[in-house]
Amino acid sequence: MEELATENSVQESLANRYKLINNKTSNDPFQKAYDFDSIDLMRQANCYAYYQTIDQNEGPEAIVNGKTCTMLGSNNYLGLTIEPRVRQAAIDAIAQFGTSLTGSRLLNGTHALHEKLEEELAKFLNKEAALVFTTGYQANIGITTALVGKNDYLILDKFNHASITDGADLAKGKTVYYQHNDMNDLERVLQSIPEEHGKVIMVDGVFSMEGDLADLPNINRLAKKYSARLVVDDAHGVGVIGEAGRGTANYFGLEDDVDLIAGTFSKALASIGGFVAGDRKVIESIKHFGRSILFSASLPPASVAAALESLRIMQQEPQRVDRLNKNAQYMREQLRTRGFNIGHTETPIIPIIVGEDIKALTLWRELLKEGVYVNAVIYPAVARNQALLRTSYTSEHSREQLDRALEILQKMKNSYQF
Amino acid sequence: MEELATENSVQESLANRYKLINNKTSNDPFQKAYDFDSIDLMRQANCYAYYQTIDQNEGPEAIVNGKTCTMLGSNNYLGLTIEPRVRQAAIDAIAQFGTSLTGSRLLNGTHALHEKLEEELAKFLNKEAALVFTTGYQANIGITTALVGKNDYLILDKFNHASITDGADLAKGKTVYYQHNDMNDLERVLQSIPEEHGKVIMVDGVFSMEGDLADLPNINRLAKKYSARLVVDDAHGVGVIGEAGRGTANYFGLEDDVDLIAGTFSKALASIGGFVAGDRKVIESIKHFGRSILFSASLPPASVAAALESLRIMQQEPQRVDRLNKNAQYMREQLRTRGFNIGHTETPIIPIIVGEDIKALTLWRELLKEGVYVNAVIYPAVARNQALLRTSYTSEHSREQLDRALEILQKMKNSYQF
Repeated sequence: MEELATENSVQESLANRYKLINNKTSNDPFQKAYDFDSIDLMRQANCYAYYQTIDQNEGPEAIVNGKTCTMLGSNNYLGLTIEPRVRQAAIDAIAQFGTSLTGSRLLNGTHALHEKLEEELAKFLNKEAALVFTTGYQANIGITTALVGKNDYLILDKFNHASITDGADLAKGKTVYYQHNDMNDLERVLQSIPEEHGKVIMVDGVFSMEGDLADLPNINRLAKKYSARLVVDDAHGVGVIGEAGRGTANYFGLEDDVDLIAGTFSKALASIGGFVAGDRKVIESIKHFGRSILFSASLPPASVAAALESLRIMQQEPQRVDRLNKNAQYMREQLRTRGFNIGHTETPIIPIIVGEDIKALTLWRELLKEGVYVNAVIYPAVARNQALLRTSYTSEHSREQLDRALEILQKMKNSYQF
Repeated sequence: MEELATENSVQESLANRYKLINNKTSNDPFQKAYDFDSIDLMRQANCYAYYQTIDQNEGPEAIVNGKTCTMLGSNNYLGLTIEPRVRQAAIDAIAQFGTSLTGSRLLNGTHALHEKLEEELAKFLNKEAALVFTTGYQANIGITTALVGKNDYLILDKFNHASITDGADLAKGKTVYYQHNDMNDLERVLQSIPEEHGKVIMVDGVFSMEGDLADLPNINRLAKKYSARLVVDDAHGVGVIGEAGRGTANYFGLEDDVDLIAGTFSKALASIGGFVAGDRKVIESIKHFGRSILFSASLPPASVAAALESLRIMQQEPQRVDRLNKNAQYMREQLRTRGFNIGHTETPIIPIIVGEDIKALTLWRELLKEGVYVNAVIYPAVARNQALLRTSYTSEHSREQLDRALEILQKMKNSYQF
């Protein structure tokens, strides 16, 4: 009884937490912070699933609370953070060039390493030029603030990553949304925009929580029909799908049709930072108008070197991408066969939809006890009562690790009914 | 004649470049990028002063185009990027923990190192808690999106850093500006806000282009009078002023009065990343509502370790901060005595105001030829016809390096009349 009461209070506090920020009960703007009790309640109910300290992140495994567990909650798709060549490249960069350039790319933070990475990225993605940002979040802000002017419309899938939404909010143009991957709705939106306005469709190549692919062939068809530019954020596509991990545009044979390909180094490429690739003139505009590139210090040499070495290894060893997709296919098949609701995923991101927030939080805790680390994703990151366990896989997971995780997931499914 | 023509076209193209983004001459949103010609024109006129590749950044000196020059254009205030202990800490972190955690702090990217840095930062700044972000830009976005709700007003100095402005644009509340460091104008703004609304004043401790200090004693007095919360972004203050580099709030004896102290690791602390420190409950809210912390991958172990080691060295060796301020004071006195217009700076950031954009760009080139690297800052980063050479100094510059730079600056002043 005691625990149930606490679980209800967690559920209620979580449901109401986003109302706090706009409440009018106090003229102290920090009162909302003092009133925010979800974290304390989750801790009391022993189901706080966030900011978990990870002692060691060894690719397919991690050490959490001193205990080794199977890591189904990273974006380390190719296991490159533990690859000795990647580590050595980063270490060498520190020894040679120091720990920071202490300034923006614009004024004093551009190093030959940035330019090398940009050159190799552009070549890899079959584009004229590329630009490196300090985070992937900032890459999307750079694109929109440079290119979407007052006269332009930005057209977004409702399930796009938050960095695109924030980029949209910072751009001068208007933003309109279409239902997730719904081509009829996209066409309705495109039709509704007067012809004299510029149109930019911006979409995740692989959706980060759901693992499904953007319907790029049809999005591209509609972009051409309505003279819209097309930007794909391939944060979870590069290194994951397409030839040697070239991403979603390559996978669909649309590299020339997609105007800009954006992405991140913090997933398959084992580093931190973001990028965009496209026509030289367009990249040059982003370089000089994108607020997040102008007003942020540059990516440190070690992070650039790690991304560059990862990019090279990815091309030299395409079998990593193959192994990743074999693991992902195995898990999708196994989970579907066992009756898990995993949505429409076609990638190594496999959501397991469990329903209520509190259920996802409880399952996170129980899975960790059993040695499996997943991500508990709750509203508003997903729709209400669509809370899910986000699982994700790497090229380095062994069949034994996957089978053991499947067994534990099955046990949970039986106990918790989802 | 040829060169003058080109300089005029540069000046005109630069003056008009921000109009391009909102033009209505085309319904191709990328046309603005194809029409943007300032970069080509600057290159033709041999006065393109941006994205300069720096081969080696050795603190007080740098190697640019294969030539050693005196570096008066970094934010490496304490020279810690070349400090062996800082480099070793970063290298050890890579060897032990890898090149990336490949996920957000929230879900799977929190390491014990982040928590250690947060703990030591909070202690250093005399606050209950701190939170580490992946960039300083994202720190300001995290603060505003978590704390400034629909019912709140954000009150900003017009010269605040762009990351605060972007944070304001992303927050739900209203934003109002007061004239730079003008306390009468700040009071006018505060008076104009109805009493039932929450008020947050957010201000740079040290202004990044001008080097002057926020008038914190009076800002704090007004904040108290009008029940406003006070947030200081001390990106250029921490490591630079105050006891052992504790920053602007400490310098004015106002650490307890300033509600939140934000800052960056990409300047004095020789790394990349940002932070905020304050009451535990307020930090907890930022942790769970700040969009830029929720939706961005975490700071890699090497960058955390470099910042942590720098923070420790700063406290162990307060003489670095002393040396920095002696160098800064010497340069301010010398430049003022020689009749340079350096505005109201009180810090190691010393702007040299030269007037027209094209003059700053030309001087940048000529100074580099003579072996002095500075930053050319033009509209809209500063007001029209207030273009400046931003010079900045470190604890590691020798008196000989400074005197040599002074001589060259004097020569330029004589030739170019500013």
